[in-house]
Amino acid sequence: MRKRAVRRRVTRIRVGDPARVREDRLAAEEPLEIRVGGRSLAVTMRTPGADVELALGFLVSEGVVRRRGDVTTVRYCAGTTEEGLNTYNVLHVQLTPGVELPTFAMERHTYMSSSCGVCGKASIDAVRTESAFPVGDDRLVVSPELLVSLPERLREAQQVFDQTGGLHAAGLFEGPSGDLLVVREDVGRHNAVDKVVGWALEQDRLPLSATVLMVSGRASFELTQKASMAGIPVLAAVSAPSSLAADLADEIGVTLVGFLRGDSMVVYSRADRVVT
Amino acid sequence: MRKRAVRRRVTRIRVGDPARVREDRLAAEEPLEIRVGGRSLAVTMRTPGADVELALGFLVSEGVVRRRGDVTTVRYCAGTTEEGLNTYNVLHVQLTPGVELPTFAMERHTYMSSSCGVCGKASIDAVRTESAFPVGDDRLVVSPELLVSLPERLREAQQVFDQTGGLHAAGLFEGPSGDLLVVREDVGRHNAVDKVVGWALEQDRLPLSATVLMVSGRASFELTQKASMAGIPVLAAVSAPSSLAADLADEIGVTLVGFLRGDSMVVYSRADRVVT
Repeated sequence: MRKRAVRRRVTRIRVGDPARVREDRLAAEEPLEIRVGGRSLAVTMRTPGADVELALGFLVSEGVVRRRGDVTTVRYCAGTTEEGLNTYNVLHVQLTPGVELPTFAMERHTYMSSSCGVCGKASIDAVRTESAFPVGDDRLVVSPELLVSLPERLREAQQVFDQTGGLHAAGLFEGPSGDLLVVREDVGRHNAVDKVVGWALEQDRLPLSATVLMVSGRASFELTQKASMAGIPVLAAVSAPSSLAADLADEIGVTLVGFLRGDSMVVYSRADRVVT
Repeated sequence: MRKRAVRRRVTRIRVGDPARVREDRLAAEEPLEIRVGGRSLAVTMRTPGADVELALGFLVSEGVVRRRGDVTTVRYCAGTTEEGLNTYNVLHVQLTPGVELPTFAMERHTYMSSSCGVCGKASIDAVRTESAFPVGDDRLVVSPELLVSLPERLREAQQVFDQTGGLHAAGLFEGPSGDLLVVREDVGRHNAVDKVVGWALEQDRLPLSATVLMVSGRASFELTQKASMAGIPVLAAVSAPSSLAADLADEIGVTLVGFLRGDSMVVYSRADRVVT
């Protein structure tokens, strides 16, 4: 297993002082290729660790799998470098017979549907995937007190951030109790979320009804979609969401919380789930 | 032209206070499909505005074009929605006859090379693109005083951030004077950089020798690669870089600066360019 933080000699410079060379730790970043049934589905730049969860969560996000039984095996490629080392950067996923790889999943990343792509469609329809787990009817109710406690609890649970200052995190909390279920870190926020969702698939816990997903940084359209695909009713972020994230959250009934700082927050959709 | 910030009714909640509904502004996010010679090359989630620059910068990053003359026309798709509106979310790029679209550019995002992808290659080789503008010999020298002034100057030049709190920015500064050449904003940091590079292509200013690219947030492998493809010798970021960003910067001779805060910084590669 590759390391999640890498040592490196760096030069620290402060205006007016002489430069100092010292050793520092950086968040590891490596490409991961995800193959399904022998075909290469995606390459993502990720922080090594929880790779199987990342691959599985990615496949949930893409609408390919939705339960543990949909996947037979996940294993690293046996190939090695010229030096005879396995890079651990390629994962082979074998789907259970009968589980199909939708054509769109193979093509959506480079090619949009057919002749006119996003030309003649509403923006959301053009890029969204359909969730098998509708969240609009999820009866979860969370308190503002619980929500404002999450950024600090996510931060405390991060292991690699303290070493490197360079990792995003996603944490899954059980509502309304607020018990922490799992935290994952990655240089990419979307990867951290995929790892959380992949963890849930391995635990056969999908859909993630009555949970809150807390992410560092901003909430994008992509993250909102990932929450939706896993059946998560509440998505909370430290910073601002984008307009399309709020539009999508509105449409599918996800409670989207942003600017979660100090003792306040902004709720962009389904504020009825946030109740004292 | 779509708006870069979108108004929306939100609920502001502070622990202990009653919830207040008010109007807020969110950073706009929309899909942009980039087509080259009739084929769909990529779909990126971006903040509308400077779309032509974004498409051109993306093509520079992918190694498809390197000078203004490589592109004949860039125009929005004429298609409309059912309501008869143009979405302005599809751009058609026509390359000059003789400029080829490399196969890898069409395939790299979903498929890695041939049989074994990133299995048997060093990580960097597996994902990097070759730059037509080597930066290792760039003689630019910048002072620490100049570098520490850039985050504040980038922030001041951001227009949409103040409204929404939700946009990344990339700014290009001329070295060693530090004159600001251009600033672009986007929900995606990589898009902001593509817009800057696309601006430079339109100005026929590539390679961007003797310039400093300042980005909000972190420096990833992808951003380092984009700097390299445009011939930018110094990449500076407010936060931490990843390990692979530092490795690549080392290999190609880019000066990578991180943790640019207050009056100090950390230099991860080619610190010889930072001189009082």
